[in-house]
Amino acid sequence: MTATRSPGRPRSRGPRGGAADTRGDILEAAAAAFADKGYSAASMREIARAADVDPALVRHYFSSKADLFVAAMRPLAADDARIEALASVPRERLGEQTVRLFLSLWDDPVIGLRLRAMLGSVISIEEIGPAMADVLLRDLLLRIVREDDALMRASACGTQLIGLALGRYVIGLEALAEASDDELAALYGPTLQRYIDGDLTRSG
Amino acid sequence: MTATRSPGRPRSRGPRGGAADTRGDILEAAAAAFADKGYSAASMREIARAADVDPALVRHYFSSKADLFVAAMRPLAADDARIEALASVPRERLGEQTVRLFLSLWDDPVIGLRLRAMLGSVISIEEIGPAMADVLLRDLLLRIVREDDALMRASACGTQLIGLALGRYVIGLEALAEASDDELAALYGPTLQRYIDGDLTRSG
Repeated sequence: MTATRSPGRPRSRGPRGGAADTRGDILEAAAAAFADKGYSAASMREIARAADVDPALVRHYFSSKADLFVAAMRPLAADDARIEALASVPRERLGEQTVRLFLSLWDDPVIGLRLRAMLGSVISIEEIGPAMADVLLRDLLLRIVREDDALMRASACGTQLIGLALGRYVIGLEALAEASDDELAALYGPTLQRYIDGDLTRSG
Repeated sequence: MTATRSPGRPRSRGPRGGAADTRGDILEAAAAAFADKGYSAASMREIARAADVDPALVRHYFSSKADLFVAAMRPLAADDARIEALASVPRERLGEQTVRLFLSLWDDPVIGLRLRAMLGSVISIEEIGPAMADVLLRDLLLRIVREDDALMRASACGTQLIGLALGRYVIGLEALAEASDDELAALYGPTLQRYIDGDLTRSG
């Protein structure tokens, strides 16, 4: 049981019984289950049990496990308060600040664990990779990039950030695991900054 | 049966019966099996059968499946002819040429399939990630980088290249999948070039 429920609230028995935050309870239980067991081992039935709702209700909101996964992981990319904070950063420091935001998410004990589960599943489960990539682009990166070729720029940012997460947090490359946030901001900030607003047509 | 054997050569029955290229046959069979079925589903017994050798001989050469995996995938990172070719490139074009070499490996039908298998396993199987990262660094990237902080520089190159492979070949991000080699060399070349020999201490 990871989801909390208001005392006295009647237990939902079907789509019509779903209270306002039932969907939220399901998402919270799903995020915890996917982080805990991985995408393949977590089941919709089990998630329903953890959220204290009928399995039919889970299927009412989410037509497949892949749908549920994407919805549960979505808030990780769409952390509005943090993304809003980026809006007040001078544009020439966006690269560095995006790196710092990304590191703070991965270093958060709860969020980091979920991001790790998400990354592993996105890579190994073919059916969710494109959907999650879409979330990362639309909910996070395309809100930072405003220049022409926004999709290419946002995609380039995504490849560097995902590679950083893999190298530092999943594989544990020594040089990156030992580096401070300041060092990583200095290393990767200019890369992101160029992808956000630099000239991408000259290879020299 | 993926490995070919000289006609009339006696079948190996144990460590002492191993002919000069038995180890090579095992590695070839292993690379094919891992690319075909993935790390978890491929078994050492099955690889022995495909290489037409006794399973005990496989265990003589490789103490574990993880060892065998790393050895089988190693030639992908240590393609000497291609890496030697990089040695004759002017150093200011190394970034761009490293991106082009990387793309040519992933676009090769046989090598690309094996790289994809390798990447999926490195990320999802904890026991092989660090070993394969070590291969990527020592066999490829540390042979390109000669500057101070070589390990940090090579690691940074690795994160961008792995992120590119994931985005373009595994997840299939539209903007990257549709981009030409020239466009990708222009996009990622300067990033690699800076990681190889640029100033990594300024974040602006």
